[in-house]
Amino acid sequence: MDALAELIRSLPDGAVVVDPDVIEAYRYDWSREPGAGTPVAVVRPGDAAQVQATVQWAAEHRVPVVPRGAGSGLSGGSSAVDGGIVLSLERMRAVEIDPDCQTATVEPGALNAEVKLAAGEHDLWYPPDPSSYEICSIGGNVATNAGGLCCVKYGVTTDYVLGLDVVLADGTLVTLGGQRIKDVAGLSLLKLFVGSEGTLGIVTRAILRLVPAQAVASTVVATFAEVDAAARAVVSMRRGLRPSMLELMDRTSINAVEDYRSMGLDRSAGAMLVVQSDAPGAARAEEVATVEAACADAGATAVFLTDDPDEGELFVEARRAAFPAIGARGAVMLEDVGAAVPLLPELLASIASIAQEHDVEIPVVAHAGDGNTHPIIVYDETDPDATKRAGAAFDAVMAAAIELGGTITGEHGVGRTKRSALPAQLGEDVMALSRRVKSALDPDGILNPGAVL
Amino acid sequence: MDALAELIRSLPDGAVVVDPDVIEAYRYDWSREPGAGTPVAVVRPGDAAQVQATVQWAAEHRVPVVPRGAGSGLSGGSSAVDGGIVLSLERMRAVEIDPDCQTATVEPGALNAEVKLAAGEHDLWYPPDPSSYEICSIGGNVATNAGGLCCVKYGVTTDYVLGLDVVLADGTLVTLGGQRIKDVAGLSLLKLFVGSEGTLGIVTRAILRLVPAQAVASTVVATFAEVDAAARAVVSMRRGLRPSMLELMDRTSINAVEDYRSMGLDRSAGAMLVVQSDAPGAARAEEVATVEAACADAGATAVFLTDDPDEGELFVEARRAAFPAIGARGAVMLEDVGAAVPLLPELLASIASIAQEHDVEIPVVAHAGDGNTHPIIVYDETDPDATKRAGAAFDAVMAAAIELGGTITGEHGVGRTKRSALPAQLGEDVMALSRRVKSALDPDGILNPGAVL
Repeated sequence: MDALAELIRSLPDGAVVVDPDVIEAYRYDWSREPGAGTPVAVVRPGDAAQVQATVQWAAEHRVPVVPRGAGSGLSGGSSAVDGGIVLSLERMRAVEIDPDCQTATVEPGALNAEVKLAAGEHDLWYPPDPSSYEICSIGGNVATNAGGLCCVKYGVTTDYVLGLDVVLADGTLVTLGGQRIKDVAGLSLLKLFVGSEGTLGIVTRAILRLVPAQAVASTVVATFAEVDAAARAVVSMRRGLRPSMLELMDRTSINAVEDYRSMGLDRSAGAMLVVQSDAPGAARAEEVATVEAACADAGATAVFLTDDPDEGELFVEARRAAFPAIGARGAVMLEDVGAAVPLLPELLASIASIAQEHDVEIPVVAHAGDGNTHPIIVYDETDPDATKRAGAAFDAVMAAAIELGGTITGEHGVGRTKRSALPAQLGEDVMALSRRVKSALDPDGILNPGAVL
Repeated sequence: MDALAELIRSLPDGAVVVDPDVIEAYRYDWSREPGAGTPVAVVRPGDAAQVQATVQWAAEHRVPVVPRGAGSGLSGGSSAVDGGIVLSLERMRAVEIDPDCQTATVEPGALNAEVKLAAGEHDLWYPPDPSSYEICSIGGNVATNAGGLCCVKYGVTTDYVLGLDVVLADGTLVTLGGQRIKDVAGLSLLKLFVGSEGTLGIVTRAILRLVPAQAVASTVVATFAEVDAAARAVVSMRRGLRPSMLELMDRTSINAVEDYRSMGLDRSAGAMLVVQSDAPGAARAEEVATVEAACADAGATAVFLTDDPDEGELFVEARRAAFPAIGARGAVMLEDVGAAVPLLPELLASIASIAQEHDVEIPVVAHAGDGNTHPIIVYDETDPDATKRAGAAFDAVMAAAIELGGTITGEHGVGRTKRSALPAQLGEDVMALSRRVKSALDPDGILNPGAVL
């Protein structure tokens, strides 16, 4: 391929990888989306100018470009495309904190945890915290508008993005926003790129808002005989409260975690809530009392409070361990459906019905306080019938969320695994509008083709 | 005009106004932007279907549509256009609170204060609070991504918009987002419409996120001999702190308020800061101590603390009264420039130099904690030379903000008064990108032509 030789010549040594063994590792993200293709090369630029050169080359030769952060995506958003390139931002990892501005200027390959760590050195905090925060990149977080556990109080990625440098589909680099906190000059293009999953442009720098360091939180852990009771407790406490964390695990996920790494969780519980309050002073006691009362009213079998951050963190770790723990039980299809908080009990009931109807196991963990659930369909991928039933259940769960006026994805993105369900959620008019925006920004469709739209 | 007769027939009686005396009142917003034209009619739809019918008619006949909320805009964003229609949303004012979801479903003509009031009945709070909150509409707030006084801690309008119904340029109604808190399905079109100043579509319904009611705040008022000392205090306290309010008034604005309505402010002060903390418990004492120390270190001439909300509110009212008070002194051109917080002293110094250089009076009030300032150029509009100098100063202030890497508008919008300065801030590539998005959504350019782009 002469064109590829041209790209190799135009970039520093080592930036373009064509070794099939290396390339293989870049075909999939964590979803192992089966449609993933084989790229002709993996390009690992060291700076924005190299990203521009790569995209200009791709535009000229009409080569599909799949941008990739840490590869921890859960929706096939960075599945490789046959004949395309994977543009990996892994080498662009600088993080710079400006304590006076309370901002972090970050290259896209930097990990979420690295930003948190750097901010912490200045008593500052970058709140968004996907469960994968130790291994996911800021570029991927921006691409998916990632959420996490603290979002119930602190919001999602887009709420913290003050500025972006973006390489457009023709290789032009644009700078949007900056260190200023309020800016309404012109269209909100900045926000359009957040959550666009690499389909509109490639982020080469993000300016993120930081906030004062979070106070050490108190943790309430409550168990319930049934998941419905836990869900009702969530609805009740969220009426007047924004706790700093409000997570749910059902019986199967509790037991999966215990099997994976024994943490002393109550295996007999139908569900467990992990709730945190970081409110200061008397407000904390009030929040904790509200949480405890909501749990008791919903019939909790046990309610436990700790002000010890290490003890609290054990339960949060248990929650974060749910995905790898369940993944250890077999092949999984991970959902990310959500609905308005008061509909959480209905959503969970629908998921249970679907599990029964399709004869599949669907443990659920949830950012319950946001109405955002992660049903995880576990199946035996060597069994074609089980695989078929799992696929049918996957679609049925998304349909159930849409039926409740909810969403097929609260924080993971549409990627390729949920693309077929998107029109049912958005409707044809919004799909048409989305395609108009996509065409305006990427007329030749070279940026992450096959993702989202 | 046959076409207009057709529109009148298609809408309920009274929806289309052609009386020149009535129309006159719809030509301007509060900026009294001199380029305002004369519309052929004012259309006041009662529901979304009537908005659709109006826009379909306008699309068919290529009639410019200027959407209008309460007319309190400060940038000429709803200046009428010759031969066009003004589409006033004033009759669409429903507000519905869902306490379980903590959301407000609001028609665009409802006032910001009406949403706050309705939310308050459920112990909930809609934070965004432009100084004009008693008279500005939610539709206008969404159109400009309006800010206000509490944004320093609680963010701006876009942070609270969960869903929008939007009528597009061809009359199609699309529903984006909803009551669910987290949703990343598809492109972030919702956020693109926020702040688009009526150039991409017309909002007919907004679903707004509410939060638990705000605690009663404590207020620190500090005076300084010079505005620079006050600005340095702001930079210092913002290093570790997000107070719930951090406002600045300079000497001239203090005296304008005293002239307008005596409130006992210190007329001799060079500047005054009004700072609030709504943190609970011990955190409040800490925040107040940080504020007091920062003021003292910067050489404050007096520092006063009150926990009495009524007393605190008097100072906030004084701050809010600054715009009408200064407006009472003559014709004004209102700026809305901002920069990163640490650059606030430089920005204020530049403004003072520009006032001197152009021989105009430029009192300044500021949402200082966000680096967002409102220099207000006062001039005698009967004096052509003074008017010319005021215009030159207006441009120079925007240029100074851009020079500092800041923005020409932090919360009011570009509208028509700042349009000529936008390319200097955004650059040609971002302007071109903006025009591509605009063309994709409004190919015939009928929505608010002449605003922003």
